[in-house]
Amino acid sequence: MVVGAGFAGLTTVRALSGKPVEVVLVDRHNFHTFTPLLYQVASALLDPAEVAHPIRGLVRPLHNLEVRLATATGVDLARRRLETDVRPISYDFLVLATGSATNFFGIEGLAGRAFGLKELEDALALRNQVLRQFERAAWTEDQGRRRRLLTFAIVGGGPTGVELAGALSELIRNVLRKDFPSVYIRDTRILLLEAGPSLLPAFVPGLRESARRTLAGRGVEVLLERKVVAAGDEHLELEGGERLEAGTVIWTAGVRASDLAASLGAERGRGGTVKVGPTLQLPGHPEVFVVGDLAAVTQQGLQLPQLIPPAMQEARHVAGSILRLLAGEPAQPFRYADPGMMATIGRNAGVAEIGPIRMSGFPGWVLWLGFHLLQIVTFRSKLIVLLNWAWNYLFYDRPVRLLVRAAGPDPEAARKRGRKLN
Amino acid sequence: MVVGAGFAGLTTVRALSGKPVEVVLVDRHNFHTFTPLLYQVASALLDPAEVAHPIRGLVRPLHNLEVRLATATGVDLARRRLETDVRPISYDFLVLATGSATNFFGIEGLAGRAFGLKELEDALALRNQVLRQFERAAWTEDQGRRRRLLTFAIVGGGPTGVELAGALSELIRNVLRKDFPSVYIRDTRILLLEAGPSLLPAFVPGLRESARRTLAGRGVEVLLERKVVAAGDEHLELEGGERLEAGTVIWTAGVRASDLAASLGAERGRGGTVKVGPTLQLPGHPEVFVVGDLAAVTQQGLQLPQLIPPAMQEARHVAGSILRLLAGEPAQPFRYADPGMMATIGRNAGVAEIGPIRMSGFPGWVLWLGFHLLQIVTFRSKLIVLLNWAWNYLFYDRPVRLLVRAAGPDPEAARKRGRKLN
Repeated sequence: MVVGAGFAGLTTVRALSGKPVEVVLVDRHNFHTFTPLLYQVASALLDPAEVAHPIRGLVRPLHNLEVRLATATGVDLARRRLETDVRPISYDFLVLATGSATNFFGIEGLAGRAFGLKELEDALALRNQVLRQFERAAWTEDQGRRRRLLTFAIVGGGPTGVELAGALSELIRNVLRKDFPSVYIRDTRILLLEAGPSLLPAFVPGLRESARRTLAGRGVEVLLERKVVAAGDEHLELEGGERLEAGTVIWTAGVRASDLAASLGAERGRGGTVKVGPTLQLPGHPEVFVVGDLAAVTQQGLQLPQLIPPAMQEARHVAGSILRLLAGEPAQPFRYADPGMMATIGRNAGVAEIGPIRMSGFPGWVLWLGFHLLQIVTFRSKLIVLLNWAWNYLFYDRPVRLLVRAAGPDPEAARKRGRKLN
Repeated sequence: MVVGAGFAGLTTVRALSGKPVEVVLVDRHNFHTFTPLLYQVASALLDPAEVAHPIRGLVRPLHNLEVRLATATGVDLARRRLETDVRPISYDFLVLATGSATNFFGIEGLAGRAFGLKELEDALALRNQVLRQFERAAWTEDQGRRRRLLTFAIVGGGPTGVELAGALSELIRNVLRKDFPSVYIRDTRILLLEAGPSLLPAFVPGLRESARRTLAGRGVEVLLERKVVAAGDEHLELEGGERLEAGTVIWTAGVRASDLAASLGAERGRGGTVKVGPTLQLPGHPEVFVVGDLAAVTQQGLQLPQLIPPAMQEARHVAGSILRLLAGEPAQPFRYADPGMMATIGRNAGVAEIGPIRMSGFPGWVLWLGFHLLQIVTFRSKLIVLLNWAWNYLFYDRPVRLLVRAAGPDPEAARKRGRKLN
């Protein structure tokens, strides 16, 4: 059984396709999310269907697989059962790939006020927030209030923060400027806060500097060595007493392992990840594998980063190990091959580091574009994503500026009310 | 000032473009909804961005217009002020075009249990419900429970009910059948209930019968002369004591004027609509016009139907009247020119009645397709809608099968909590 249909879980079940095993894939969503493009949903460039793909559609060719929509709530290791919010499911082998969630590090006032960018729902909520702040600003005559409404503080100078800052700047300067009378735009501020001394610390210094310069050129205020210690209504408090007014706080400064990690009783790594052996098996439980963002996998003394490439490589390795164990052979240790990294900073600018190659500016951007387009899961999405990107590039327009939430009756609630009344 | 950015409101402000008037357009959404295609969002064929268009994008060329996002809560006719949930706005002329909402006619148990199909949010909620019911059915071994989960009762045999029944049948038989193991599909029922003796009562008898035959051929159970008197958890009670088990009830059997009607103190027509004079002015208030679904406009003794063509014709008329009044001339009476009607019943089948012409089957469907494509508001949407339709037609696939809701922090709630704490 595989829990989680992210990159790790989906890769595992695909690697088990056509093998003599019965696979159950459990996820709390009915879709897989192409997380690298979430920031494009948040910045109103892409629609949900372009980055989220129904799991059942993706696994249709896999005849040895059943899909179950449920939230995993715990693992009963002794009885070999996954506990879910629907009912428990028994397993022979268990692959845990429930990923990570936004980590607010317990900072005062942050949870409930700051927006994350880990899930499709986060991205939609952030898109709605950005649009709503501009609509609110259109109502106010008070410049102080307007500046507060239109200040977006992004915390975290990693790829997510950098990409979002660039995309938000483009959305505002190229599109919302036309939608909202010009007076408001000069009251807009995009702040990018990073606790360390540079953006994109995982990249080489030249590329870090290139990213900073590009963002600055697009009106993003990059604030380095700023550590958030508390958040209040419409402001952030920094270490050293500085106070920043910001109507919207977006937190991309850290992730933690998903809640399922706590139920395993295992030793934990950075951010609450689950420590596994070199074969990715849970210590003492050779039938349980942990992969992706949930796992603390150490190589040459360092924990692997919580990125898609390690997740997918681990998943393929674990699928192979399960088949080996079934054939009576031992599981092999996992070895990670680093394929490089890249990030984009919006129109015509990106940074990429692949082995000895370093690219920035336009070549880095083209590489980023092509690579992600290739990776997008289905053919139809490629077509539509390309169409949207082309549209955006040619017309400086964002097609998806909708403030919308699914509403409607809540039959569960009605049922509960009915029970109380009857 | 124009209230409501539906077909009536948007047509009014467009007709006032470039004229010597300052226009304020107030709506509670930041988008205009192309309502005829909502059922395609509900049946997972189209994404929200294909039927909803940001108002500010649509009115960008209109330089004498300001847009305000707010919910109109009432009209202070004496002080000539529109009351909103943000703050009041004064007007010289007021055009009320706040449309209609689902009318449950006070039937016991219906509100809170039945799904409507009047708004984008309704369509998304219904899409999520259909997918969720199939996911729930995948978990159950109990056939009775599964049949209840997979029974969709659509109430109302007008165009919305007919179109939705056809689309739902296609979604289930062509797509969900592949996503969910075959055993479940034969437990699926789509019921279409109509209180009167035939579907599509506004069309000529031959077309009504054609619609019924087509739906029956696609597995929809058409139940005529069935009147709903109450709804319970997973069932409907009919006049005469019949009881129908159905996990999902969709109500397309009636609309009522939007809540704003009540605040005008005027005489009311069918479904709470506001009675206006032949010039569409509110009796006693020549500066207030009421148009679209909100208005009760009587011609040759009959109230005009709540459809898009009368709404758009009324809007153009009112824009002209305002300019005449400003020029010191009197407002002219409105006269409606009926352009005909059409409805589709899914793949290759539609009905159309335009003057003396009646079409059904494939020609009716092609006409429906072409006409709606022409009407869709922006060029980009046309392209993407066409792409989705073509995809669906060629591959019998539904691209947008996502169960998603925008989540995220609720800064308003946090602020309130914060206030209480501090």
